[in-house]
Amino acid sequence: MSDANVTTYLLDRLAAAGVDRIFGVPGDFTLAMLDDIDAHATVAWVGCANELGAGYAADGYARVRGLGVVCTTFGVGELSAINAVAGAFAEHVPVLHVVGSPATATQAAARATHHTLGDGDFGHFARMAAEVTHAQAVLTVENAAEEIDRVIRETLAARRPGYLLIPADVAAAPLAAPSADLAAVEEEAADAEVLADLRDAVAAALEGASSVAVLADILVQRVGAERALHDLLALGVPHAVSLWGRRVVDESVPHYAGPYVGAVSEPAARSVVEDADVLVMAGVQFTDLMSGFFSQHLPETTIDIGPRRTRIGDREFGPVPMAEALGVVADAIDDARAAGRLVLPSAATSASAASTTTAADAATAPVTAGTGPAASDEPDAPLTQAALWDAVSAQLRAGDVVIADQGTAFYGMGTHRMPAGVTFIGQPLWASIGYTLPALLGAALADRSRRPIVLIGDGAAQLTIAELGTLARDRVPAAVLVVDNGGYTVERAIHGRTAAYNDIAGWDWAALPAAFDPTGFAVGVRATTAAEVADAFARHDARGDGLTVIQAVVPPLDVPPLLSALAEAAARANRAASQG
Amino acid sequence: MSDANVTTYLLDRLAAAGVDRIFGVPGDFTLAMLDDIDAHATVAWVGCANELGAGYAADGYARVRGLGVVCTTFGVGELSAINAVAGAFAEHVPVLHVVGSPATATQAAARATHHTLGDGDFGHFARMAAEVTHAQAVLTVENAAEEIDRVIRETLAARRPGYLLIPADVAAAPLAAPSADLAAVEEEAADAEVLADLRDAVAAALEGASSVAVLADILVQRVGAERALHDLLALGVPHAVSLWGRRVVDESVPHYAGPYVGAVSEPAARSVVEDADVLVMAGVQFTDLMSGFFSQHLPETTIDIGPRRTRIGDREFGPVPMAEALGVVADAIDDARAAGRLVLPSAATSASAASTTTAADAATAPVTAGTGPAASDEPDAPLTQAALWDAVSAQLRAGDVVIADQGTAFYGMGTHRMPAGVTFIGQPLWASIGYTLPALLGAALADRSRRPIVLIGDGAAQLTIAELGTLARDRVPAAVLVVDNGGYTVERAIHGRTAAYNDIAGWDWAALPAAFDPTGFAVGVRATTAAEVADAFARHDARGDGLTVIQAVVPPLDVPPLLSALAEAAARANRAASQG
Repeated sequence: MSDANVTTYLLDRLAAAGVDRIFGVPGDFTLAMLDDIDAHATVAWVGCANELGAGYAADGYARVRGLGVVCTTFGVGELSAINAVAGAFAEHVPVLHVVGSPATATQAAARATHHTLGDGDFGHFARMAAEVTHAQAVLTVENAAEEIDRVIRETLAARRPGYLLIPADVAAAPLAAPSADLAAVEEEAADAEVLADLRDAVAAALEGASSVAVLADILVQRVGAERALHDLLALGVPHAVSLWGRRVVDESVPHYAGPYVGAVSEPAARSVVEDADVLVMAGVQFTDLMSGFFSQHLPETTIDIGPRRTRIGDREFGPVPMAEALGVVADAIDDARAAGRLVLPSAATSASAASTTTAADAATAPVTAGTGPAASDEPDAPLTQAALWDAVSAQLRAGDVVIADQGTAFYGMGTHRMPAGVTFIGQPLWASIGYTLPALLGAALADRSRRPIVLIGDGAAQLTIAELGTLARDRVPAAVLVVDNGGYTVERAIHGRTAAYNDIAGWDWAALPAAFDPTGFAVGVRATTAAEVADAFARHDARGDGLTVIQAVVPPLDVPPLLSALAEAAARANRAASQG
Repeated sequence: MSDANVTTYLLDRLAAAGVDRIFGVPGDFTLAMLDDIDAHATVAWVGCANELGAGYAADGYARVRGLGVVCTTFGVGELSAINAVAGAFAEHVPVLHVVGSPATATQAAARATHHTLGDGDFGHFARMAAEVTHAQAVLTVENAAEEIDRVIRETLAARRPGYLLIPADVAAAPLAAPSADLAAVEEEAADAEVLADLRDAVAAALEGASSVAVLADILVQRVGAERALHDLLALGVPHAVSLWGRRVVDESVPHYAGPYVGAVSEPAARSVVEDADVLVMAGVQFTDLMSGFFSQHLPETTIDIGPRRTRIGDREFGPVPMAEALGVVADAIDDARAAGRLVLPSAATSASAASTTTAADAATAPVTAGTGPAASDEPDAPLTQAALWDAVSAQLRAGDVVIADQGTAFYGMGTHRMPAGVTFIGQPLWASIGYTLPALLGAALADRSRRPIVLIGDGAAQLTIAELGTLARDRVPAAVLVVDNGGYTVERAIHGRTAAYNDIAGWDWAALPAAFDPTGFAVGVRATTAAEVADAFARHDARGDGLTVIQAVVPPLDVPPLLSALAEAAARANRAASQG
């Protein structure tokens, strides 16, 4: 046990925020910090194969637990992780990047120190970090407590990354443990007048409407308004989600219409969203990939609920936290229904059940009958993209954490309903391929009670495969499904269908587990039919405690329909842009 | 064949600068460029497993060929490569980073586009790149030719990275092929008066000196002054090198004293440098790791020759290109020797022989008798660090490119003489572990006539192992020696000798080749004795065309003596800094 110092102060703050794992790669400027992590009562170190993997793992951890931490060394380490940090910024994920730097005196001497550019300027990397983080601090002995508190507080409040640069001497400098809880950023509450105005405006918007629908997106989860959304949807309101926001709704209820992707949507979802008299938008951000390249077509009347403000027509109401605004809308819809002005599909009980199911319960709950797709009609036919995602969907059950990489996996699963209680994670704005394998490491360690599943293309897996060894070392019982189609099929769909640059080096996916994990915890199986996929999952579950890489072989030019449609929309957008 | 456009213009410029490979990972904002690369007569695409690997490969290529190129997509791709670009900056390596971005019109619309932060600001990543590159440009249709020329010219002149951001529409915009050669940056020549002054000052410095020595460093190679240095050393001047600069001298000659690492040097090198009456320094940069943490102790009289300026005492002479200054010094020393004022060890013929040996000759030349260390006295004893590097050194021969990762490999080889004609590459300022495996890919493709050898620790190899598949796919006949000691021994030497955070996930190194390369080109062997290391190299050579991963098992706490001494110096420096 070390004496109380700057590092232990930081660790105590992180522990109080719910952090029990820090991901990273050691470096000589962080070694003293690592001693303190090793000695900490509740925070443990997870050494990763490389820093990009550690950054993604911290992101996956944060998406499940609310805050993630990656710790790297100066220059070489932090820059290798910076893509992950930028991704967390884009995707509203609170990741704290802790970087150990040369000692204060070394920096003051401005000499050519390893892990620097040799020019005596120790500020390059902090300036780079400032472009992709929300809050930053360079710690000194004097400001350490205050700045640690500020950066953690702002990271949590903004739900975006923070950056702490800690010189080696500062990390070890004495500092008493925090004497009081970290005060949260005080969110401005709605006052009674604003709420009354909002109630009137919502009622007015619903006046004369015979249909209402909800479109929900990921910010609902990020601001902690899921329960308010679930209560609203439990009234039986027809709803769709953005591809980003799938985890915020229960997809097993009948009044869920599917993902809304602008003109690329399937007809049911498109009709629910575009034909509603009033559309309630909960935390919606239209990005190119999630709007079919900005082809959304919204009803004239929308109630657009953001994290802190709600917009109806040209009026904006705020501050009103999202959860409160959703409550106002739910009350108004309930009133309209009670008064017979609005007819809704009957409220589905499974929605409210899901909203009160704890993760622990969910993990052992059986698959709700009828929510998964039927198994393939031709279980022994050569696997296609369509058959693959049908087969995978049939395996999902409440409590699963499913992370799908931004290729055929994400889009292939896009049109499949999940059972209640599945947490589906993607990264569709930042869209950094390879993200999911390390993200699963973090997500799985954040909640050991969930069944971890990653769906990733072979091209994507080549970017981050080394964390397979980390998953096995930490005994994460993951199913790792690798789509083996010889290259970047998501790119083929856009351009260069048969071009050599979309091919990848051919690896033996089923042999990799044994190479990365000689202990036998990780095993590999090759699946070429839907039946073999199902069998691989069955054997994975039967082992109970082990990691299985499922190499799912599909034709290189086979593309899920949603991805085809999106790629066409992308090509159209590119042409328009080139002509613009 | 596409019509002449901005991309083909860029490719023609690169081809003229000697580039025949571009390393990268495809992305939807670069696909149109990749078509043009595919169609180019002399420039080929090398798809890597991930962008960091591609960046390191471009660096390794540049160190052999004079210019390297990495091509990535916006945001996700470029940030994953940025550690490699920063390393090229620190280590004076001209790497051009070409990034494909969203089309101009997409950027103008400022909408939430994938691979952006979603905030409509498309400038974040270019600003980050500006911190670690020497020259930058965002191309437009109007400025493309001019800016491509400027960035390539400045990258070559500064021998530091350049950054070209090319929107997808600009990449495809028509542009006629270059009509004239790219003018080099005109280097200011020395005028007669400055040279005369320098001659006088050098003669004065040598006046009364009875001994002179040379300390050479990597900048000699970077500015192309190796031949001038060789001519000077061929006079028989005793000399040492920095650990960074080992490739610039012929270590097989008797008047080579070894590496100078300040107080950590072996006695012979230390005495040659510190006890000389006059020390000629050629391109020397003292960094912490290369000076034993700034423990160098130089003679009172030094002639400090930089790329463009030479300093003697408090006088500076410039502009004088390094090669010319070395010539002035050589003439002065020759005069002093002829006049009997200076006694030098007799000129070694091997030095001048080496300086005129072509790479192609060298590749087939036998090891010069007596220059390599003797094979181990106990070839069948369990391998130690000492025995390992003895065994490896005994295998080296003229024409080899040897890249040693910044751990026990680099320091273990530090005290072993190389045969003439070996190019020894390290990255001791930036010191990013894992660099060498992808760097070898680039170095090997830059000159197929050399025998490629990489020496890397297991901890380091975990950062970039995926490029093993790329090496195999591109049929690089490399010997990949992995030091299997269960973790980060370079960190153990500094701190946390037995701490768990210095352990790594246990991989089966000998099984990895088959998993990454089902074709059998790559094979793995495990070596636990010096005899087995020798045998592994012998079998590798006997195969003629194949890649061999040699898993060399050594004790986790065994550390090469030079690294021990440096780690102690580091600890002393850290203590001093903490107290400062």
